[in-house]
Amino acid sequence: MKPVITAFRDSPDRGQGLARDMAVRWAFEEVGAPYDVRLVTFAELKEPAHRALQPFGQIPTYEDSETALFESGAIVLRIAERHAGLLPAEASARARVIMWMFAALSTVEPPIVEHDAACLVESEESWFAARQPLLRARIRHRLGDLSLRLGDADWLEGTFSAGDLMMVAVLRRLHGSGLLEEHPNLVTYVARGEARPAFKRAFDGQYAVFIAASSAGG
Amino acid sequence: MKPVITAFRDSPDRGQGLARDMAVRWAFEEVGAPYDVRLVTFAELKEPAHRALQPFGQIPTYEDSETALFESGAIVLRIAERHAGLLPAEASARARVIMWMFAALSTVEPPIVEHDAACLVESEESWFAARQPLLRARIRHRLGDLSLRLGDADWLEGTFSAGDLMMVAVLRRLHGSGLLEEHPNLVTYVARGEARPAFKRAFDGQYAVFIAASSAGG
Repeated sequence: MKPVITAFRDSPDRGQGLARDMAVRWAFEEVGAPYDVRLVTFAELKEPAHRALQPFGQIPTYEDSETALFESGAIVLRIAERHAGLLPAEASARARVIMWMFAALSTVEPPIVEHDAACLVESEESWFAARQPLLRARIRHRLGDLSLRLGDADWLEGTFSAGDLMMVAVLRRLHGSGLLEEHPNLVTYVARGEARPAFKRAFDGQYAVFIAASSAGG
Repeated sequence: MKPVITAFRDSPDRGQGLARDMAVRWAFEEVGAPYDVRLVTFAELKEPAHRALQPFGQIPTYEDSETALFESGAIVLRIAERHAGLLPAEASARARVIMWMFAALSTVEPPIVEHDAACLVESEESWFAARQPLLRARIRHRLGDLSLRLGDADWLEGTFSAGDLMMVAVLRRLHGSGLLEEHPNLVTYVARGEARPAFKRAFDGQYAVFIAASSAGG
């Protein structure tokens, strides 16, 4: 049985590949493992069948013959543990890759999500414009630190890993904000990730869902 | 060599154990592994020596004879992988515990941190009061989902695990907000975690640092 993941039937980002299934698709493509995608509507996210798999009503979920998971970080780690290519074999090197996965999702991403959420939910509020510099400063703070650490290296820990996959997936959410461009090494880091054939296959996979939904009038 | 972690020399929460070294201390105590703590000042967090260990200038860091890590999630996982007691042996059950660690840090915690940040940074702003319902609604949304999933179980995956350790550590940040109290099963879940002897030893460890700093006039 091929693992099955869930993704949005209707791309909220018009096929830009910014939803959380993208990192999971990319991981499958990097390790060359086949997978199936089950598309869910926004209404279905709230239903008990989906909540049983994902208590917070989000995508992606992941099911293989042995277990069912949610949280893109945990799913990417599961894929990386079952197939070679995204995690070093040696335990302490693996620990450092997992460290970057946590850093991407719990240190770098939250201020980016917060900025997105303000644009989505608070754009009509009187304070929206006044808070923008604050929100952008928080993102800048993380990007400055990350840029310093990356320096002129290609990847965070020697060779491409699940840590880079997750970090690039997070940084892609900044496209259009102008913030990434303040750090040329982060721009080329993201471009290096996006240039990988596995990234392109994953991107095309999610883009095909957007095109199909669009032509169906969805 | 005992692993060495870093923690704040001056507790920003007056010994309540809400800083991120708490989960790491708790993990060491659960598995019965000795560790040393190196205290750092806020000024030292910005220095190159600390940045080499923690590029984002935070605590905790972790060093053992084989590797150096940051990110509390990654450190707790490292401790859980080197010692029995916090992770199931079987791979798919382990994956579900790691899933809850990611859920704690990247799904449940961000809106809690956001609420804390607003109180810290924006309390003098004209919009502060008006935004409170929005910030609290985001936390409520996550707590409602988590409460439903937990139901009347003691722990998230059968027996106490690193997933519960991380989730309880995150939920403890809500003490005083009144939000946890809307879900009696989450209140008892947190209390069950705090009643563990290992939690108490970890709490006492960080509290002793606060007392020492206070009596030193720090």
